[in-house]
Amino acid sequence: MSLPAGYTLDPRLADDTHPLASLDLCELRLMDDANYPWLVLVPRVADARELIDLDAAQRRTLTDEIDLAARALRAAFQPFKLNVAALGNLVPQLHVHVIGRNQDDPAWPAPVWGRVAARPYSPEQLVERISVLTRHLPA
Amino acid sequence: MSLPAGYTLDPRLADDTHPLASLDLCELRLMDDANYPWLVLVPRVADARELIDLDAAQRRTLTDEIDLAARALRAAFQPFKLNVAALGNLVPQLHVHVIGRNQDDPAWPAPVWGRVAARPYSPEQLVERISVLTRHLPA
Repeated sequence: MSLPAGYTLDPRLADDTHPLASLDLCELRLMDDANYPWLVLVPRVADARELIDLDAAQRRTLTDEIDLAARALRAAFQPFKLNVAALGNLVPQLHVHVIGRNQDDPAWPAPVWGRVAARPYSPEQLVERISVLTRHLPA
Repeated sequence: MSLPAGYTLDPRLADDTHPLASLDLCELRLMDDANYPWLVLVPRVADARELIDLDAAQRRTLTDEIDLAARALRAAFQPFKLNVAALGNLVPQLHVHVIGRNQDDPAWPAPVWGRVAARPYSPEQLVERISVLTRHLPA
């Protein structure tokens, strides 16, 4: 898939997440918050802010990559529920959250945003979580 | 597209929304909350709870219908931002929110869920809003 030049990852997304995999369309990243298993997909499309800024081929690839991310999350952590969302009220660069939710997580049943402070991973936790997720992603 | 038998709209979704259009895959409905222009897409797929419960063809149709709903919302109301989300923590039937957000809306910049009580439309407002939206949907 050809992508326009000019894509750069928003610095706030870069600060809040860790790289996990580079997919056909998106950067797949792990949110640095041990409260929830939480992935973020960032399409490498310059200046995209909304899902409707993608063309039909990009949208199809995105839905395939959301599926891949959600299946990896489910296989790795067996969450009770998946939450998938493209919000972008604070960080305008288009990004899609894929979050595993459990009935004993600190925000349940509310959405995760703005509920409790993020709990950054320790280095050891981060290595372990990335390792588990990577085993459930296509090679 | 063939759909499995057994689909029925969750009674809570039926209570909280008004019918707007029947698309190839989804029922398109208007959330009964005048705080935000807010559409809900409900795939007519029995027992679907997660996006990953859809097959690849259904996912592609859903992404097309999200696009259609979001474009109608933008054309009708020119929101500052679109929020698109499949959460389902309270109502398990798979449904996708497409919400127009503005910097002066009562939840901005937080997500809308759980912030302020819904403000149901008056009958006149409802007729007007449905009329405006319908003009921006494909015939």
